[in-house]
Amino acid sequence: MAFTLSPIGRIETPWATPAECPRNGRQAQPAPLCRVVMEAEYLPGLEGVEGFSHLLLLYWMHRAGVARLNFTPPFDTRRRGVFATRAPFRPNPIGLSVVAFEGFEAPGVLRVRYLDCVDGTPLLDIKPYLPSTDAEPGASMGWLAPHATPRQD
Amino acid sequence: MAFTLSPIGRIETPWATPAECPRNGRQAQPAPLCRVVMEAEYLPGLEGVEGFSHLLLLYWMHRAGVARLNFTPPFDTRRRGVFATRAPFRPNPIGLSVVAFEGFEAPGVLRVRYLDCVDGTPLLDIKPYLPSTDAEPGASMGWLAPHATPRQD
Repeated sequence: MAFTLSPIGRIETPWATPAECPRNGRQAQPAPLCRVVMEAEYLPGLEGVEGFSHLLLLYWMHRAGVARLNFTPPFDTRRRGVFATRAPFRPNPIGLSVVAFEGFEAPGVLRVRYLDCVDGTPLLDIKPYLPSTDAEPGASMGWLAPHATPRQD
Repeated sequence: MAFTLSPIGRIETPWATPAECPRNGRQAQPAPLCRVVMEAEYLPGLEGVEGFSHLLLLYWMHRAGVARLNFTPPFDTRRRGVFATRAPFRPNPIGLSVVAFEGFEAPGVLRVRYLDCVDGTPLLDIKPYLPSTDAEPGASMGWLAPHATPRQD
């Protein structure tokens, strides 16, 4: 069983290679402005997006490399399963970021912050962020708790 | 350009058809217990997942039907772009849910709440939910604000 994805756009960030990318979208402070550039055929799907302060972006981590099911993270001393991390080298390398949406620069060009992916990453989906179902500010972070990026907002 | 996904497991829910599914994972109260059943080969990837209270699940909405770029939602009077909604019939029908993780029922079988997908949905990825990057409790919900599902937690 296999499923096929097609990009609906591309993501522009300041990072040319995976090695340059921050550990997460909140690590670089201030978080730089990035752009989402939609393919023209998908522009009708953006109607109504302008009212949301935050969006969920799904993208294809095309530079992730071969999947590894477990590994010792660089800032840790124990082996962790990839599903207990946000590492890019996953069986299905779909990246997910909650971004602040700062409006349209042009039709189909969105200004966003809090990305951590490489420049040119293929975009798969945009979803509105809904705090009623997506926000769990009190969630516990397991082994990652000592490594949490402090929030500046 | 196209990318290929393979399921890493399947999701078991009480809903046999899309028509039976709740509008979102918080609508049914109390939210029923669901199960994520991983393929055996991916079990090593779960090491360390046990410490997280919430997870992000990505899944393939195999019953979504043909993509529609815009449409009038059933509880609305205006046309909306699909990227301003969480509707399943998207160009890349990847579903995303923030779920409460209630532990392992068996190795590779996770007990979770707050799903809204149909029984048998193919699982694509599990990520730990990190409030430091994923929680935006004050986000504004645009046209969906009047339709927000009240939180009971």
